[in-house]
Amino acid sequence: MEALEIIGQRAKEAKVSLGLLGQTKKNETLYAVADALCAHASEILEGNKADTDAAKKNGMSEGLLDRLTLTIARIEALSEGLRKVAALPDPIGSVLSMDQRPNGLMIGKKRVPLGVVGIIYESRPNVTSDVFGLCFKTGNAVILRGGSDCIHSNIVIVKVIREALSSCGITPDAVQLLTDTSRETATRFMKLNQYVDVLIPRGGAGLISSVVQNSTIPVIETGTGNCHIYVDKQADFTMALDIIDNAKTQRLGVCNACESLVIHSAVLNEFFPLLVKRLTEKNIVIRADERARAVCPQCEAATEEDFGREYLDRLISVKTVDSETEAIAHINRYNTGHSEAIITENYDAAMRFLNEIDAAAVYVNASTRFTDGEEFGFGAEIGISTQKLHARGPMGLEALTTTKYIIFGQGQVRK
Amino acid sequence: MEALEIIGQRAKEAKVSLGLLGQTKKNETLYAVADALCAHASEILEGNKADTDAAKKNGMSEGLLDRLTLTIARIEALSEGLRKVAALPDPIGSVLSMDQRPNGLMIGKKRVPLGVVGIIYESRPNVTSDVFGLCFKTGNAVILRGGSDCIHSNIVIVKVIREALSSCGITPDAVQLLTDTSRETATRFMKLNQYVDVLIPRGGAGLISSVVQNSTIPVIETGTGNCHIYVDKQADFTMALDIIDNAKTQRLGVCNACESLVIHSAVLNEFFPLLVKRLTEKNIVIRADERARAVCPQCEAATEEDFGREYLDRLISVKTVDSETEAIAHINRYNTGHSEAIITENYDAAMRFLNEIDAAAVYVNASTRFTDGEEFGFGAEIGISTQKLHARGPMGLEALTTTKYIIFGQGQVRK
Repeated sequence: MEALEIIGQRAKEAKVSLGLLGQTKKNETLYAVADALCAHASEILEGNKADTDAAKKNGMSEGLLDRLTLTIARIEALSEGLRKVAALPDPIGSVLSMDQRPNGLMIGKKRVPLGVVGIIYESRPNVTSDVFGLCFKTGNAVILRGGSDCIHSNIVIVKVIREALSSCGITPDAVQLLTDTSRETATRFMKLNQYVDVLIPRGGAGLISSVVQNSTIPVIETGTGNCHIYVDKQADFTMALDIIDNAKTQRLGVCNACESLVIHSAVLNEFFPLLVKRLTEKNIVIRADERARAVCPQCEAATEEDFGREYLDRLISVKTVDSETEAIAHINRYNTGHSEAIITENYDAAMRFLNEIDAAAVYVNASTRFTDGEEFGFGAEIGISTQKLHARGPMGLEALTTTKYIIFGQGQVRK
Repeated sequence: MEALEIIGQRAKEAKVSLGLLGQTKKNETLYAVADALCAHASEILEGNKADTDAAKKNGMSEGLLDRLTLTIARIEALSEGLRKVAALPDPIGSVLSMDQRPNGLMIGKKRVPLGVVGIIYESRPNVTSDVFGLCFKTGNAVILRGGSDCIHSNIVIVKVIREALSSCGITPDAVQLLTDTSRETATRFMKLNQYVDVLIPRGGAGLISSVVQNSTIPVIETGTGNCHIYVDKQADFTMALDIIDNAKTQRLGVCNACESLVIHSAVLNEFFPLLVKRLTEKNIVIRADERARAVCPQCEAATEEDFGREYLDRLISVKTVDSETEAIAHINRYNTGHSEAIITENYDAAMRFLNEIDAAAVYVNASTRFTDGEEFGFGAEIGISTQKLHARGPMGLEALTTTKYIIFGQGQVRK
C-alpha cells in the first residue's frame, strides 16, 4: 500500500470514533488544541520563518508574503478561532424529521458527519487550523493538502494539533497533512474515492478548475465571484453610490467584491457622472460601454471580455441597458453564480430580480460584500459554494454533514 | 458550435422560463403530456417494436427484453406516473427559513430548481417519461442520454412529449434526447459543465463507475447495494427468518435486496439450520464461512470475495461473528452505503447499530427492501443515492432542487 493510501486508510479508521464523540468531549478538545497552539507559538513561528525566508528568496509578492506570515498575534487569532468554533452549536445527531408510515415503520432523518473530508488549499497557514476546527466539530476526519510555500508552517501546526489530540485521548489521525506537495500527489489525492467522501478546494480559479477536472471524489466547488450591481431606473442614487463604493472598494481581492455594474439608460445621464466621481476618488478605473462613455468620455472602453472578468483589482466594468429584462439577461450570462444585487425603490423590479437571477445570493438594496458565513450568522465558514449541489452560498458547519435514515421496525416486510 | 453544445445551450435557455412556471401550469402540462402519450400509443409501440426486433436479433436475454418491451398497458402506466407526479406537492418556491440579522438584513433561503439535469441511463423506456415528469415538476430542463438498445422508443416518446409541451405553450427544450448514443458522445456529454448543473447515472455498476470517472459535472451517484442483515444473539428467530426471506427473495435483481448475512455465534447452532431450511426451500444458494458450514455442511464455502459481492441473484453469503463490534466492523467494511439491518430484541444493540453503521438507511427489525421513494412516502423517486453529498438514500423531488439566498436590504453596507 502506498503512502497516500495509508493516509486514506487511517482517516477512514479515524472517522469511526470521531463520528461518535459527544459535544462536550469535542469542545473540550478544541479548547485544548487552542491552548496548545499558543503554548507552541515559538515553534510555529520558527517553522513559518523557514517558509517566509524561502518565499522572500523566491521573490514572492508583498501581498502573498503577508498572507503567509504568522505572528504571535496571528497565532492567538487562530486559537481564538478554534474557541469560537467550540462555542457554536453542534449540528451532529439532530433528527431533522421522523414520520410514521402506514405500515408502522418510523423513518427518521438524522444529521451525521460526512466522514473523511479532503481540503486542497494555497499558501495561508490559518486555513490549516480553521479547517481542522470545523471538521473536528462536525465529527469528520480531515486530510489537508496545503501549498508547498507553506509546508514548514503546516508541518508544525499539524504536529501541535495531533499531539494535543493524543493528550486528550483522541486519535491524532483526525487531522493528517500531505507533506509531499507535488502536483502528481495532489492529482492522485483527488482520486482517493475509496477513502475520501468529499473534496473542497480553497484557492484561486486555477486550483479550483484543476480539482473539478481531475477529481473523481465529489467536489464542493468554492468559487470565483463576478458579482454585479444593477442600478434600476428607480434607484435611490445616494444608496446606489454608497453600496457600489462599499462593494467595490471595501476589500478588493475578495470573491464577493463587485466587479461589474449594470445601469438603466433612463438614469445614465444623471447617475453615471456621480458614480465616476465617487469611484475615481477611490482610485477605481472604470471600463464602460459606448453609451456610458458618451456620458463620461474619461472612462476606458470596455470590451466583451471585461464583462466576464473577476478583476480582484482597482477596476470595474459598466454596461448600459434599456430594461430590467436586458439587465437580468446580461447578469445571468456573465455571473459566476456568486452574489448579485439590484438597487431599486420599485417593488416589482425588486421581486423580479430576486426571482430571475440565478446565483447563490441575490440582494435588494444591500452590498454584495455580505455574502460570508459570519455575516449570514453561521459563526464560521468553510468556503462559499458557487455550485448547486449539497450547499450553495456561504457554507457553515452544516455543509460538513450529511444525513442518514434511521428506521425503527417491528418485523415489517415489504409486500 | 457542435451539436452537443447546441443541445446544452438550448437547455440553458429553456431552464429560465421553466424555473418561473407556476404550479398550476406545470400540473396542467403534465396532464396534457400524459394524455398525449396515451393518444400516441400506437406510434410509440411502433418505435418500440424496432428496438425489440433489433434486441431479439442480437440475442438479448429474456429479462432485459422484458424491461425493454412496451405494451398499451405499460404506456398507460407511464401516463399514470406523470399524473401522480402532477398530484405531488411542488417543492419549488418555498422559503425554508428567513432570519433578520443585527444590521436589519432579512436573509431567506428559497428552494429553486437545479437548472439543467443530465440523465444517463440504460435500456428502460419508462425512465424516459418518468425522469421528464420529475424534472419538469421541479422546473428543470433535462437532457436524456438513454441506451442505444432503446433509441427508437426514446425518439418517439420524446417527440410526443415535446409536441405536447409546445401545444401547452411550453418550450419543448424542457426535454431533449441525445440521439447519438455512441460512447464518445456520452463521454463528451459528461464534460458539459458550462450547461449542465448535475448528472445522474441510472443503471449498473459499470455505467455508474464510468460516469464517476469521466464526469466533470457534479454527479449524484446512485448505486449498488451490498446490503446486510445482522442476526443478533437476542434476535426473534421467526422475525429474522421472515425478514431475511423477504429481503432476499421478494425481488432478486434490486439494489435494496439483501446479499449477505451476519450471524452472532451464540445463536448459530440454533438459528442457522432454520435459515438454511427456509432459504433452500426458496432455491437460494448459501455461501457460508467455516464456522457456519460446521453447523450446516451442505452450504457452499464463502470466500473473502463473496462478502464484497452484490449478487442480484439466488445467492447469499453468511459470516459468523462473536460480538456486535465485530458485526459492525464487518458491515462497515463491506457495505456499499445503501441499506443495512439488525434483527434484535435488545435495546442497546439496536441503538448501537443505528449509531455506528455508515449507510444511507439503517434498519432495526425491518426488511432492507423498504429503501425506496414510494415506501418512504416521497411519492416518486429519481434514484437511490449511495453517496453523501446533496442527497442520501431515496431521492424524491427535493433532490432535484437547490436553494438560493434572497436578501432584503435597506441600503446596508459592510463595515
